Amino acid sequence: MQTPQKIAVVGSGLVGTLLAIYLKKQGHTVHVYDRSPDIRTVQFSGRSINLVMSNRGWKAMEDVGLDDEIRKIGIPVDKRAIHLKNGELNYQYYGKDGEAIFSLSRGVLNRRMIDLAEAAGVDFYFNHKIWDVTLADATLHIGDSEQGAWTELKYDKVFGADGAFSRIRHRMQRQSMFDYSQEFMKIGYKELHIPANADGTHKIDKNSLHIWPRGNFMLMALANLDGSFTCTLFMPFEGENSFEQLKDEVALVNFFANYFPDTKEVIPDLVRDFFKNPTSYLAIMKCYPWTYEDKVALIGDASHAIVPFYGHGMNAGFEDITVLSHMMAKYGDDWKTIFSEYQKSRKPNADAIAELSLRNFIEMSAKTADSKFLLQKKIEKWFSDKHPDKWMPLYSRVTFSLQPYSEALAIGDFQNKIMEEVMQMENIEEKWNSEEVENKIIALLK
Amino acid sequence: MQTPQKIAVVGSGLVGTLLAIYLKKQGHTVHVYDRSPDIRTVQFSGRSINLVMSNRGWKAMEDVGLDDEIRKIGIPVDKRAIHLKNGELNYQYYGKDGEAIFSLSRGVLNRRMIDLAEAAGVDFYFNHKIWDVTLADATLHIGDSEQGAWTELKYDKVFGADGAFSRIRHRMQRQSMFDYSQEFMKIGYKELHIPANADGTHKIDKNSLHIWPRGNFMLMALANLDGSFTCTLFMPFEGENSFEQLKDEVALVNFFANYFPDTKEVIPDLVRDFFKNPTSYLAIMKCYPWTYEDKVALIGDASHAIVPFYGHGMNAGFEDITVLSHMMAKYGDDWKTIFSEYQKSRKPNADAIAELSLRNFIEMSAKTADSKFLLQKKIEKWFSDKHPDKWMPLYSRVTFSLQPYSEALAIGDFQNKIMEEVMQMENIEEKWNSEEVENKIIALLK
Repeated sequence: MQTPQKIAVVGSGLVGTLLAIYLKKQGHTVHVYDRSPDIRTVQFSGRSINLVMSNRGWKAMEDVGLDDEIRKIGIPVDKRAIHLKNGELNYQYYGKDGEAIFSLSRGVLNRRMIDLAEAAGVDFYFNHKIWDVTLADATLHIGDSEQGAWTELKYDKVFGADGAFSRIRHRMQRQSMFDYSQEFMKIGYKELHIPANADGTHKIDKNSLHIWPRGNFMLMALANLDGSFTCTLFMPFEGENSFEQLKDEVALVNFFANYFPDTKEVIPDLVRDFFKNPTSYLAIMKCYPWTYEDKVALIGDASHAIVPFYGHGMNAGFEDITVLSHMMAKYGDDWKTIFSEYQKSRKPNADAIAELSLRNFIEMSAKTADSKFLLQKKIEKWFSDKHPDKWMPLYSRVTFSLQPYSEALAIGDFQNKIMEEVMQMENIEEKWNSEEVENKIIALLK
Repeated sequence: MQTPQKIAVVGSGLVGTLLAIYLKKQGHTVHVYDRSPDIRTVQFSGRSINLVMSNRGWKAMEDVGLDDEIRKIGIPVDKRAIHLKNGELNYQYYGKDGEAIFSLSRGVLNRRMIDLAEAAGVDFYFNHKIWDVTLADATLHIGDSEQGAWTELKYDKVFGADGAFSRIRHRMQRQSMFDYSQEFMKIGYKELHIPANADGTHKIDKNSLHIWPRGNFMLMALANLDGSFTCTLFMPFEGENSFEQLKDEVALVNFFANYFPDTKEVIPDLVRDFFKNPTSYLAIMKCYPWTYEDKVALIGDASHAIVPFYGHGMNAGFEDITVLSHMMAKYGDDWKTIFSEYQKSRKPNADAIAELSLRNFIEMSAKTADSKFLLQKKIEKWFSDKHPDKWMPLYSRVTFSLQPYSEALAIGDFQNKIMEEVMQMENIEEKWNSEEVENKIIALLK
């Protein structure tokens, strides 16, 4: 057991709140600060993408006994439902029978987790704006405005769980030898809405992640408990098929009629939602180091903000907590080593999931509409079912296993080279599940 | 001629000061702010690397008639003097007869340029700390301390020439769609000193850039007008042959006796200078965009801080001014287009010189000690002298021409592939200047 510490967590998002529960259960005093009001008292923002919880997230939940609580507010999703432009609907299963990710509404999950954290004894301070941190002695600087008077709050440790635009990281960035990058995507997103049927049921299959892949843009939808779906339109800001072009109602309605004809029935408030909801940005943030001595540590999006296309932002952040907690158990009161080993262990994996997430936009928006790609995935699944010891598909490694992301990425690249050769076999469409293909893969694996 | 504007330049370094002269000569009101005291009133810092001015820098000087003034305080350097560990001394000429770069002391040059700017009518405000800028209306926020009271200074345009740690860029970084990265090198540097002889002459050849290449570290020296040399030791912070290992006098003296025996006579105050002067960091900063509407523009290191190994930090910054000035002449009062075309033109070239500079550390610290590399350079020079229309070596493109850096980089890579094949020819050491080699290069160029 560790000597109790007085710990501040900056940020009451998913990672900050779960971290607070972990730290509280270890016997520490935990204060969570957030510049925003209590999310339990406000309307949701109209700019969220639904979350999917997968094995890494569940592992972190299980370790503090929250998995059953949270599973109640999630909907299992075991496949992609791919809506082609010609009206065809294809299904692509994510894993083996019984394997599924869980769709969760960010707002619902975050509210529930704050309840659970409070019940565990964590203190929350909402509407408290942290403007700066003194790294050397873990002191927070708090005040109503950036230029106004600030008060000092001294802690033993400070965790920056304050997201992609972290203030804590912002201070670290001004240190020598701190590497940092932020890169904004040319693609933005907008939240849309599929309401529930009058009887509260879902208008389309609730156990699918729905994708309308259209090349350089796509629509997706994930189910909510109340029978509705949160939809997200991803497309470029400028150029062909871009937000810039959808300036008025006529352009918007024509565009949807052309590219997403089967959504007409299910998105009744398209025009209102589209022009009311903001167009949001996507960015990738990377940095290193993540910690300062034994005083300050970044976690979650604050240290590794990624794009949402693999559905792993929350899962990666929760896995940070699993690893940190492992280091705490291993090194006791030696926080310098805890922080140092935590960041060394997590950095390559954070970089790997950043890369995988970026690549997955192309997979979702373009490749899922490509029959060759779907065949490749079918072959992989077939071979993997026959030889589970020889082949686990990349998606399963990332989503249904706890293998480090960096290993999953490396093995995935190796497997992809093999599949490139397999896909070039003559008549592969006919003989995809033949002994010849099986033997070819086995040979290439050696 | 442009309509006169009220313009603030933040930063009185080399780029800020030269930019101010350009803007003043265009008829604008120009105020230069610097958080530091007037460099003409203070001692130099003991952490500078000597500058080399090459054609891009001279071009910017010529356009405002400053080249003759500045040439007086420079020393032409036409070759590398390569000091091998075994005492051997090799020379490698940079270009053709008469081609040279000019060694300049940063302090001497900066002081002289501020004199010239003041004479041109530029107003300087030293000890004025700019903490923030309101991008939308080009308003500077100035005050004694970051948390104290600030005063507003409204301008028509603001230029951020405030270096690698730019405050102006810092504000832009907090905008959406602003890409930014900072990366610190594992190699640091320390300034050392070769004093003049008693009669004011130089102890070693003043027309050479002296290098002591030792693999992952190196020493270099560039001449000053007063007979002294500014030396710079570049080496890793940690690991084998690192600053970390040179903790005490004994370690330092042994290290120099082992690796740089011929410096014993010429660096008399090694121990004092080494432990007095700071070990400095090297960082690469990149960002985009460089401008905000027609209000704010970044220039020089503020928009593209690079490592010093090609000697092009100042030259690239001065070329920014040449391009900006060209856009001003072309687009008159349309500052939005001026800024937009300026950044579009410069960004790929800034990225190219960043890449070339990084690569040049390996060339200087390791390859110059490799006889194969020196032979390759000799063949390139020989072929280029015979066929100046067919081959200009990369170094000459970058340093003695005004070809865009991005083109120089691309052509350099192409030439390097050719030279890799040439160097693999049998007995290339004997037949390096034969007709066979000549024909081989001509064939590969096609």
